[in-house]
Amino acid sequence: MAEKVRARLGERAVVSNQADLAPWLTDWRGRWTGQAAALLQPASTEEVAEIVRLAEASGVALVPQGGNTSMVGGATPGEDGSALLLSMRRMNGIRAIGPEQAAIEAGVILADLHDAAEAIGRRFPLTLGARGSATVGGLASTNAGGTQVLRFGTMRQLVTGVEAVLSGGLVHDGLAGLKKDNRGYALDQLLVGAEGTLGIITAVAVRLVPAVIARGVAWVGLADPQAGLDLLRRLQQQTDRVEGFEILPQDSLDRVLRYIPGTRPPLAGQHAWHALIEATATSAGEEPPSELLQRLLEPALADGLVEDAAIAASEAQAEAFWRIRHSISEAEKKSGPAMQHDISVPVATMPRFMVEAAREVEARFPGTDASGFGHLGDGNIHFHVRAPAEAGADWIAGEGPAASRFVHDLVTAAGGSISAEHGIGQMKRGELERLGSPARLAAMRAIKAAMDPHGIFNPGKLIA
Amino acid sequence: MAEKVRARLGERAVVSNQADLAPWLTDWRGRWTGQAAALLQPASTEEVAEIVRLAEASGVALVPQGGNTSMVGGATPGEDGSALLLSMRRMNGIRAIGPEQAAIEAGVILADLHDAAEAIGRRFPLTLGARGSATVGGLASTNAGGTQVLRFGTMRQLVTGVEAVLSGGLVHDGLAGLKKDNRGYALDQLLVGAEGTLGIITAVAVRLVPAVIARGVAWVGLADPQAGLDLLRRLQQQTDRVEGFEILPQDSLDRVLRYIPGTRPPLAGQHAWHALIEATATSAGEEPPSELLQRLLEPALADGLVEDAAIAASEAQAEAFWRIRHSISEAEKKSGPAMQHDISVPVATMPRFMVEAAREVEARFPGTDASGFGHLGDGNIHFHVRAPAEAGADWIAGEGPAASRFVHDLVTAAGGSISAEHGIGQMKRGELERLGSPARLAAMRAIKAAMDPHGIFNPGKLIA
Repeated sequence: MAEKVRARLGERAVVSNQADLAPWLTDWRGRWTGQAAALLQPASTEEVAEIVRLAEASGVALVPQGGNTSMVGGATPGEDGSALLLSMRRMNGIRAIGPEQAAIEAGVILADLHDAAEAIGRRFPLTLGARGSATVGGLASTNAGGTQVLRFGTMRQLVTGVEAVLSGGLVHDGLAGLKKDNRGYALDQLLVGAEGTLGIITAVAVRLVPAVIARGVAWVGLADPQAGLDLLRRLQQQTDRVEGFEILPQDSLDRVLRYIPGTRPPLAGQHAWHALIEATATSAGEEPPSELLQRLLEPALADGLVEDAAIAASEAQAEAFWRIRHSISEAEKKSGPAMQHDISVPVATMPRFMVEAAREVEARFPGTDASGFGHLGDGNIHFHVRAPAEAGADWIAGEGPAASRFVHDLVTAAGGSISAEHGIGQMKRGELERLGSPARLAAMRAIKAAMDPHGIFNPGKLIA
Repeated sequence: MAEKVRARLGERAVVSNQADLAPWLTDWRGRWTGQAAALLQPASTEEVAEIVRLAEASGVALVPQGGNTSMVGGATPGEDGSALLLSMRRMNGIRAIGPEQAAIEAGVILADLHDAAEAIGRRFPLTLGARGSATVGGLASTNAGGTQVLRFGTMRQLVTGVEAVLSGGLVHDGLAGLKKDNRGYALDQLLVGAEGTLGIITAVAVRLVPAVIARGVAWVGLADPQAGLDLLRRLQQQTDRVEGFEILPQDSLDRVLRYIPGTRPPLAGQHAWHALIEATATSAGEEPPSELLQRLLEPALADGLVEDAAIAASEAQAEAFWRIRHSISEAEKKSGPAMQHDISVPVATMPRFMVEAAREVEARFPGTDASGFGHLGDGNIHFHVRAPAEAGADWIAGEGPAASRFVHDLVTAAGGSISAEHGIGQMKRGELERLGSPARLAAMRAIKAAMDPHGIFNPGKLIA
């Protein structure tokens, strides 16, 4: 198969030297390693279509890969080496960009999209830690989220259309990015979040939004997560300019202060919980966002909903507040072994869930320490279960999986999702099989079989 | 089959008296009439599941129906009488409602949802002419739009989750309305807009938004549609509070003034084109929307982008402006026979399309008079081709279809959609087959066959 591709598409389209291949056979966190005889590098949609036709004819599967930043092994091939890697990185052109939309190829790196939007005075609002590596094709295929989802949503809300190569090498072209189109099934939305299992996304059209001309960032101390949600709702009733609302417990803050050099507590006193709030302005006519936050937080301070608050007085201070939030994972890693869970429940029930789930986990697994932090406004937290103090690193492989299943059981019982933003990939496939509803699993299997009759699209991921 | 349902679910669940059935066998505009031995009226999701299991076992198809307000015959059974009607009107409970979301059964009428949201100080923003009859199940199944799509989107953007009965009577429950959920394929989004061909939507969770406390409505005169789009973009760069932006040519306005009693021209002079603009305020802290419009329109008047403008000085005047817009269809009907087209193209190309398509149609079909009006900001207009003055009503059946095909060809060549908001139903199925891309048609057929293996879900609609 690789030789056929080389013959049709030329030398540059195929990498089969194992030394050159190696970096792409292991995920970025080093959790999964697979094998592949070659990595294919098409330069155009027509080349992808040619590869798909060859793969179906040869019965060889394809594992699409963008920046190789999956959190769930979604872009790593299987260990048997039967599949080929399909790298989209050479397809990195910006086909069109205007004030409302951009049409960009799958291999464009998120940071480059940010720059391209900024260059025309606009903004692509989604961002995340891997912005320097993650590609828009991968972001769309995994319906990526991040810290700025509150106002503009995940990729699903930002993608206005998809170009993809489907079974038979047929090219679905949804790039016109029509705001209204009722010609049947939502194929573009079906491909978003399908993790490359239904076809290969070759380009996406995305919505651009007004550039931010000013932001205000506040740090508040809270009695509990419910106070955080009450505050968020109160803010949202009065403005739609809140773009970030992250919550964390005191112990997460303590861990950051202990392990991350140069961090300082934003507030003078101790508080059981904390929230980081960001509001923006996109036009000069609007009330400056720091003043907006000041005005909206004052009554919450006065009536005790908020225990204390600090509004960043400078961009440097705003960055320092955000640095605390972005350092939680690193501080956690330094503080010891933990099982991490990317989960969501309905926003309204998240405060109670955070408190009760931690209590139940700690009771069931004595010595563990559980807490969640993250995107309260999206109903999505990262819920960590830390190993008992006396446990070693082998706790992860020992009791860890049982603790994770217990967390996933609690999430499922609460009507939530065992994967809020990271996807299923190979990491959570067993848990999806175990906990997915019969209707969801049956529909997914039917769709997978219908759209991938030769089984060539990212096998072993998401759904069989 | 009907007798089996009667035996299992009781007398109330089946209407087989043809006199009682008759109103539901013809669409509300009287364009399609079908036959059915009975109308089934389940009262719960479990009853729908029971009906689906019986239907699959008996090989009897089901035609789901809400308020019977389809524009494309989507809820009317076929003429052969082999299918049963499945009315969702008894499932009209509001299961839960809170500030952020409501979970409502498929048979809830849109106006009742509006009232329920208003009763808790919130708003469900989507609205349309049939709000007193259309049900949320039908609105979701057809991804309905309307005049307030600009800010909050169509049903696709407002539905946060779907409960539906799928093949095998399996119940998919997406009502938790998780803001983030990456457990695989977007089943809820796939069911939205599927026109009942993949399963029966039994309930939906929808997003609620802040109630409007004030609105400002402006009428402006414009040289051409491009000036309208330039104005809209300028407004949107400075505010996100524009909720409506409708455009119409002078001849549409003239027809309303001539045929609709009590209407008056909003501006003193004549203008080739007109736009109706609505901005809202949802909190007391915001600049009043009339002042906002005044402030933003002044420079556009000064530099000639807008020829003239009037801002409604009262709610009565705002209503009068909107009444002109809402009366266009009625005025058109009174003025003579016309073929109507619900089309979209990319927003940026709509101004040129409106002008050029009208010119091309009139050249190809001498004596006709073509023009479009509607949702410029959504890239969606209603494009009418009026019969030549000397033609009679039989022009509709004679030259009419050729004119429609010509319009659809132009739309397709422009990368647009032959159905922006009304859906395909039975009316446009032939055109979808003729103009749909091979990739779209193949994917839709594969999904249809996979999710409806017994062919019982709304046969003869959308896709075979």
